[in-house]
This record gives sequence, C-alpha cells and structure tokens, in this order.
Amino acid sequence: MESDTLSDPLANLITNYHELNGSTVDELPAVPSALEFMRYVARNRPFVVRGGAKHWPACRKWNATYLRKVIGDSTVKVANTPLGNADAIVEQNEGSLLFVEPHETDEPFEDFLGYVQEDSTFPEDRLQDRHVKYAQTQNGNLPTEYPSLLADVPPDVPFATEALQQPPDAQNFWLGNHRSTTALHKDNYENIYVQIIGQKHFVLLPPVEVACANEQPVTRARYVPASGETGKLVIDVDEVAEAVPTPTWDPDEPNVRATAYSELSRPLRVTFEAGDMFYLPAMWYHKVSQSNGPEGFAVAVNYWYDMSFDGGFWT
Amino acid sequence: MESDTLSDPLANLITNYHELNGSTVDELPAVPSALEFMRYVARNRPFVVRGGAKHWPACRKWNATYLRKVIGDSTVKVANTPLGNADAIVEQNEGSLLFVEPHETDEPFEDFLGYVQEDSTFPEDRLQDRHVKYAQTQNGNLPTEYPSLLADVPPDVPFATEALQQPPDAQNFWLGNHRSTTALHKDNYENIYVQIIGQKHFVLLPPVEVACANEQPVTRARYVPASGETGKLVIDVDEVAEAVPTPTWDPDEPNVRATAYSELSRPLRVTFEAGDMFYLPAMWYHKVSQSNGPEGFAVAVNYWYDMSFDGGFWT
Ligand SMILES: O=C(O)CCC(=O)C(=O)O
Ligand SMILES: O=C(O)CCC(=O)C(=O)O
Repeated sequence: MESDTLSDPLANLITNYHELNGSTVDELPAVPSALEFMRYVARNRPFVVRGGAKHWPACRKWNATYLRKVIGDSTVKVANTPLGNADAIVEQNEGSLLFVEPHETDEPFEDFLGYVQEDSTFPEDRLQDRHVKYAQTQNGNLPTEYPSLLADVPPDVPFATEALQQPPDAQNFWLGNHRSTTALHKDNYENIYVQIIGQKHFVLLPPVEVACANEQPVTRARYVPASGETGKLVIDVDEVAEAVPTPTWDPDEPNVRATAYSELSRPLRVTFEAGDMFYLPAMWYHKVSQSNGPEGFAVAVNYWYDMSFDGGFWT
Repeated sequence: MESDTLSDPLANLITNYHELNGSTVDELPAVPSALEFMRYVARNRPFVVRGGAKHWPACRKWNATYLRKVIGDSTVKVANTPLGNADAIVEQNEGSLLFVEPHETDEPFEDFLGYVQEDSTFPEDRLQDRHVKYAQTQNGNLPTEYPSLLADVPPDVPFATEALQQPPDAQNFWLGNHRSTTALHKDNYENIYVQIIGQKHFVLLPPVEVACANEQPVTRARYVPASGETGKLVIDVDEVAEAVPTPTWDPDEPNVRATAYSELSRPLRVTFEAGDMFYLPAMWYHKVSQSNGPEGFAVAVNYWYDMSFDGGFWT
C-alpha cells in the first residue's frame, strides 16, 4: 500500500488529511461561543471542553440513590445483548455478517439499575452466561422515558442552538456499565455529548476514512429470547428488511475485514471523564466503550442537532 | 445521461446537491455578523449584500477624474490580450489546447485608463485589431500598485477577518471594460468581492460540479508582441512549464468540450452593481464578464482570505 499512496487519489486524500490535521482532539479552555463552535462545524473537527458541564445539576446530583428516588419504578427501555454488543456486526460461523439489534425490554428502572450494578459483584467467569443491559434508546429518550431528570440538565446547548439556528432534534440518556460497547458507526447529527458518571472511551475516524471503514450492506437481525431457555438470547434474522450499509472494519481488530485503505486509518482515541463536554461532528465514525463510576455504572447525556445537508460538505 | 443518474454515484451527488440547494445566490439584508458569515463558509454557499459597500469612500469618490488625480502617471501592470481573454483556454487549429497568459506591460496609469475608455469610442468592426487591456494582477496589487487608493477602501472585511481569524492574504484592484472576460476557474481563497463602478456578471458552479468542468492538464503559453508587427500579439508556448489542470468546459458554450456530466450543471448567474458586496466561497468555479459604468470602464476590489485546508470540506 505504502508505495501506491502517491498514485492513488483516495490514499492521497487520507494521508493529506492526516498531514493537515492533528492526531488529537482539540481541548478548549471553556465552553465556546456560537462563532467558535461554528468554526469547528465548518472544519468538521471534534473538540472537548474538560469539565465544561461540571456545574450542571446532573453532575452534582446524580448517583444511584438519587436516580432511584426520582425515577423509581418507572418503566424504561433496556437493550439486552449476550455480550454487550447492541447494534453490532456479528460474524456467523460460515462467515456471513449480520447487523444484530438488541432484544428490547420494558423494565422498572430500579430493577434495571440493580442488574447493571450487580454485574460488578460477579467474578469474570460467572458473567459469561449473564447477558448485558444498556439503556441506550437514542430516540430522544431523556424527555420521554426520564422526564424526572429533565430539571437537572439544560434543555439544549446554547452555543450550538445559536450557531445551528435550531433546537436539538433529540436529547438522549445513556446508562450502562463496562460490559457494553457501541460498535463503530456514524450519525448524520452534530452531537454534543456530556459524560455525567464514569468514563466513556471514544475511538474516532474522520469521514475521509470511509474507505478504511469497509462499509458493506449487511443483513439485519435481532436478538430474541430462546424459546424454553430462560435468559438465553438467540439471533433472529430479518429476512424482509433491506441490508443496510454498515462499517464492518473495527479499528481495535485492524486485520479483520480490512480494506486496502484500512492501514492508512489513524483512529483518534479519547476518554471523557464526568463533567466533560465533547463535540462529535456529523458523519464521524465512532466506537464507544465505558468504565464504571464509583457505583458500578456510567451515565451520559447527549444532544443531537440535525446537520445541514445543503452546502458542500456532506458530499 | 438522464437515465444513468440513478446508478451513477457522481451524477447522483450533483443532482442531490441541486435538489438540496437553491438555484440562486442568497441576498442578505445587511452585512453579516462573523457568525452569520461563518454559517455560509461552513455550507460553502455564496451570498450577496446589495449595496453592502455603498458607504465606502471608494463608491462615492471613484471616477475617471478622481483616479487620474490620485494615481496620475504611476506605473501599473496591465494585461494585454487580443480578445479580452486573459488567463484563458485557446484552442489551436489542430484542436490542441493552450492556457494562455496575457502579455503584461508596465504603463502609466493615465495612459492605460485613457486606452480602456477609448474602446467605447470605436465602432465594433474597428475594435477587432485593437487589443484589450485589463488591470487584473491578482497578487495583492491594491497596496503595491495603487497605494493612493488605500484610504478609500477598508483594509479588510471585519466580519470575515473575525470569523476566519486572519487578515486577508491579498487585496486586489480590477479595472477594465466590457471587452474583458475572466475565464472559468477556481481559487483556493474565500473571496469577498466588491463592485465599485459598472457591473460584473458572474457565472458560478459549485465545487461538486468538478466533473462538469472537464479539468485537464493544459500546456501553458503566453501572448507576446509579434516581432516586426506593432500591436500584434502572438502565442508563445512555454515548452518547459508543467501542464496545469484547468477547467476546459465553458457554461456559455455547453456543447464544446463537455463531459458526460456537463449537462447536469446548473450554473448560477448573478450580476453585481456598484456598491454590492459578494461572498464567493473557496473552490467555486467562476467566469466573470463586465459592463461599463458611465465613463466606459468597470472597477472592483476584492479580498482573498486563505481557506482552511484542514477539516473535512476541501476533500
Ligand atoms: O455512548 C454510547 O455508547 C454511544 C454514543 C453514540 O453513539 C452517540 O452519541 O451517537
Ligand atoms: O473580476 C474578474 O474579472 C475576476 C474576478 C476573480 O476571478 C476573482 O475575484 O477571483
């Protein structure tokens, strides 16, 4: 590959991009103005404001006791997977790929939180048969499923609302533990992501690395409870649904399903602590894993703003 | 072509772009704030502020008498071409293409302006043998060649300087008449273009139409005075210079040197009057012709700001 770089325009594009852009995520000293934010949107580059949300009531107040008190036994939607792999590629024995969505259950919040916390009390070898739960509905679940938490977070991110001239399209709540990983994917949203409890570890690829990510149409499937075997989840292939283009390369397993361009990828790796505010630009690939806070779980809140589809960039 | 559009990703990109973007240049009611400007930079879309510069001293003061008075017989650089085609493609008899630069002369400003104005006194058929002069040096010629005019125009465009966090890279002065046309090309600058006298007629193609513009490496050449024949210009091919990628399609002659994509092009056409301020985003193709003001010439001033090469857009 190395020797082809000069003659291959796609390889050139990727290596030029890396030469012109740092291999780190910019750290801003304070929450940006709308204009400062817009410069990052224009350049489609991420940044983090360390501690940018630490004055939010959520960052001061949220812990297991408080969440139990204000949410109680309200029903919330929970993603269940055998391995913490919600919305992820699963390679079948014969080599074919499936994009498997989680088994979604409605659970009283208290039970769900208890289950997530209890994972930490099991020895590693006993966890294998215990499937993984993650609240990650991503459809604006904060106002709908967690209305009692709304008072603790701002309804929008003022610099983003002013710059993009619109309120957020969705405000999402994420609660899980170290066992869940969100597979590499991209969203057509400008994303303001705020860590509240624990840590999130992002692996990031810029859109120019599309040729590294090996997007392929992958058949949809879903985890469903195995009939007769309590607690076991099996894959149910959706024969009707259209195969959807999905990144099939994983920067953490760089030799599996690599393209000729994957070795040119330079993943950015960055960890967010409680109180950090992160801007993830539209169309950036991201893979997300987590570390528990002091009580055995991690919480984040994010704001999705519609990206501008006109203009030149999205091409 | 029409029927291929669905299956051809490049054709799709162009038609999608047109569906998502209007086919006109936005008109802003007033000079934008830095944030408003940055939104246009982010979307890589042009705008015009009608009358946005009409309070500039240049717009009130500049006319032939004033320019003669303050510039006098200072030497200025003048582009000389047989047909008003500075920096343009010339097709040779045998079909090969040359990119021909003008014959550049140093002239006392008063003589140059007199020549430009006199063109209007000739009947059309007598103009054929009279070559065309245009002050269009484009290397920051305003401060270097026309320092006595600096007091009449702002040193920068404050909203652009604030948004882009840098002063302009070049401030250019353009003086010519209806006989000069600037051929289709693109620049890697964010361009604020202000019409001072007369009109300019821009034909614009967005960068996504690169496949329409038929860029090809074209051999460089230059007009030089024919030896022995006073006033005659002939083409001198530069055998040494590298052939430079150049758009060879002309939206005003759509059937000549068209690609399979050229018919998908939707050129934007817009005319600027004295006092109008125009934002031409980086990498947009533009072709520019002009109409004389009341004294037989047209004047414009523009500010080139370095575009950001990092981030995602320029790819
Ligand atoms: O926090 C996660 O697990 C994933 C976050 C994510 O994908 C997003 O914010 O778009
Ligand atoms: O005014 C002209 O003739 C051409 C202007 C131009 O090409 C520019 O401003 O980049």
